[in-house]
Amino acid sequence: MRKFKIIFLLLSLTLFFSCAEQNMQSSGDPLPSWNEGKTKQSIIDFVNTVTDENSPNYVKPEDRISTFDNDGTLWSEKPLYFQLMFALDRIKVLAPEHPEWKNKQPFKGVLENDLKAVMESGMKGLMEIIATTHAGMTTDDFEKIVIAWIDTAKHPTKHLLYKDMVFQPMLELLSYLRANEFKTFIVSGGGIEFMRPWTDQVYGIPPEQVVGSSIKVKYNYNNGKPFLMRLPEINFIDDKDGKPVGINSHIGKRPIFAFGNSDGDRQMLEWTQGNTGKTFQGLVHHDDAVREWAYGPDSKIGTFSNSLMQEAESKDWTVVSMKDEWKVIYPEK
Amino acid sequence: MRKFKIIFLLLSLTLFFSCAEQNMQSSGDPLPSWNEGKTKQSIIDFVNTVTDENSPNYVKPEDRISTFDNDGTLWSEKPLYFQLMFALDRIKVLAPEHPEWKNKQPFKGVLENDLKAVMESGMKGLMEIIATTHAGMTTDDFEKIVIAWIDTAKHPTKHLLYKDMVFQPMLELLSYLRANEFKTFIVSGGGIEFMRPWTDQVYGIPPEQVVGSSIKVKYNYNNGKPFLMRLPEINFIDDKDGKPVGINSHIGKRPIFAFGNSDGDRQMLEWTQGNTGKTFQGLVHHDDAVREWAYGPDSKIGTFSNSLMQEAESKDWTVVSMKDEWKVIYPEK
Repeated sequence: MRKFKIIFLLLSLTLFFSCAEQNMQSSGDPLPSWNEGKTKQSIIDFVNTVTDENSPNYVKPEDRISTFDNDGTLWSEKPLYFQLMFALDRIKVLAPEHPEWKNKQPFKGVLENDLKAVMESGMKGLMEIIATTHAGMTTDDFEKIVIAWIDTAKHPTKHLLYKDMVFQPMLELLSYLRANEFKTFIVSGGGIEFMRPWTDQVYGIPPEQVVGSSIKVKYNYNNGKPFLMRLPEINFIDDKDGKPVGINSHIGKRPIFAFGNSDGDRQMLEWTQGNTGKTFQGLVHHDDAVREWAYGPDSKIGTFSNSLMQEAESKDWTVVSMKDEWKVIYPEK
Repeated sequence: MRKFKIIFLLLSLTLFFSCAEQNMQSSGDPLPSWNEGKTKQSIIDFVNTVTDENSPNYVKPEDRISTFDNDGTLWSEKPLYFQLMFALDRIKVLAPEHPEWKNKQPFKGVLENDLKAVMESGMKGLMEIIATTHAGMTTDDFEKIVIAWIDTAKHPTKHLLYKDMVFQPMLELLSYLRANEFKTFIVSGGGIEFMRPWTDQVYGIPPEQVVGSSIKVKYNYNNGKPFLMRLPEINFIDDKDGKPVGINSHIGKRPIFAFGNSDGDRQMLEWTQGNTGKTFQGLVHHDDAVREWAYGPDSKIGTFSNSLMQEAESKDWTVVSMKDEWKVIYPEK
């Protein structure tokens, strides 16, 4: 009988400590980098009500779908989308094999760090850069190239690794949602295969929960060593109207929580708000020229137009001022 | 003190019973509907080795990706793919609104149960049936139509609900893999939006883990009540060469375990076997004319060709004879 008592005691202690750990987690501030105020409270209130089984707003765990834009929402996007910075870096790596690029735009502009010349080459020039840097290799090789870049490449003016230019408050938000049994997805205009190699490490979001734009790939059996070859042909643009389509294709459920930062996210937020039951729509507003960048209706990339701001106000979407709401921007090392 | 003792006792009992349940599950036979033998043992050996941290074949849980074909692999597919049976049923439902169908193939054939006439209308006729029954409505409405059908429609000769014509041994395999921290995906030539409304209920596979063929959809804001309209235009065919492409697009990782039943699954199995480390490839062989159907190289739908059998033998893929390996076919009610 004594033996059973000891076993009971051990079992009870195990259970006690596992419960204690849970309580510690739930009693702490889940969003420590967010300033107290209406925005932070509205996020917490939303999570509390949809996870409360006694609330009329209760949502079952399997339907707690949350979607996040990437560029400008989870990490910075200046001076250009980081995927374009990757492409420019890649052109420089490939240049020794292409001596002709020295005299040929848009490559000449890239090699001479003359972004103006690159931009003047227009959409055609941009597509040439993308095709050169993103196609013509296997998916495995592209993954290796992306990993090598993300692990080493630094931002030209902030001198931080790009992967360290993610927003600490948003990392906390992702963790907070997952702790409350939300599934977190990225739904980005960026390239799906550019993001997947590092989103798990950086955001805790595995490849199968990343939705993005894509180029076509082709299966090749290759005598028992099959590969997928990346082709210089657009498959899907996961932006604007494309975001609800991408969500439908990859997730097959409507989100109840969505966060973006630009006109490219408008339809994703509308689609989320159109869901039945209580939903949450958030927009990161880049208004912090000191700690990050400030850009609004005038910006050509990553626009947050006046009309988007009006839509947000009229529809009760939460606009997050980086300057006012966030204690820190990037994670402290 | 007495109060604490009672609380301890209650906690301990709770823990005791939850552990007892776990042990029962893990000590029991995980595949009770599979006959003992080489096939069953090879599945168990594979799962044991990739989940054993001390094995050179160990695979981390996040990389335990398994993919399953649907038609003929998880449920039956005779006399026609069940999605076609759905389409034929749907034509009959819609017929009162289309009196002209009485004299117009392929609809006439459908209404008169003259499958031969339907087949004679060829690919063009088939596409007319698919467009009529699968497009021209919102994704929400299509989901409702599919749910109403799957909950009530019965097979013409077996007189079972279609959703009860799933293979009990495969249900056990799916559960067994998930209990060992595999993620289970469907990768089917069937329509992604035809499967998603019921795969969670029937197979325990949520919508975001279903990959399939699709038609195009278009976002419409509709004054604040946004919808996606299904268009009569093919978007993606998730069959043969398309399966590795669909896996890459939706999962972004290569499977280590894949199961199919026909030539349409060949590339998925090749792609899986081409992964690094230990992998498993299985094929369901429909050779049970008494309990299900027997069809091989001669069948026009759901072929298991001689060349596939040869490839399976030469590459050590596991061919599962329904007749010999499975104690039961469908779940007992």
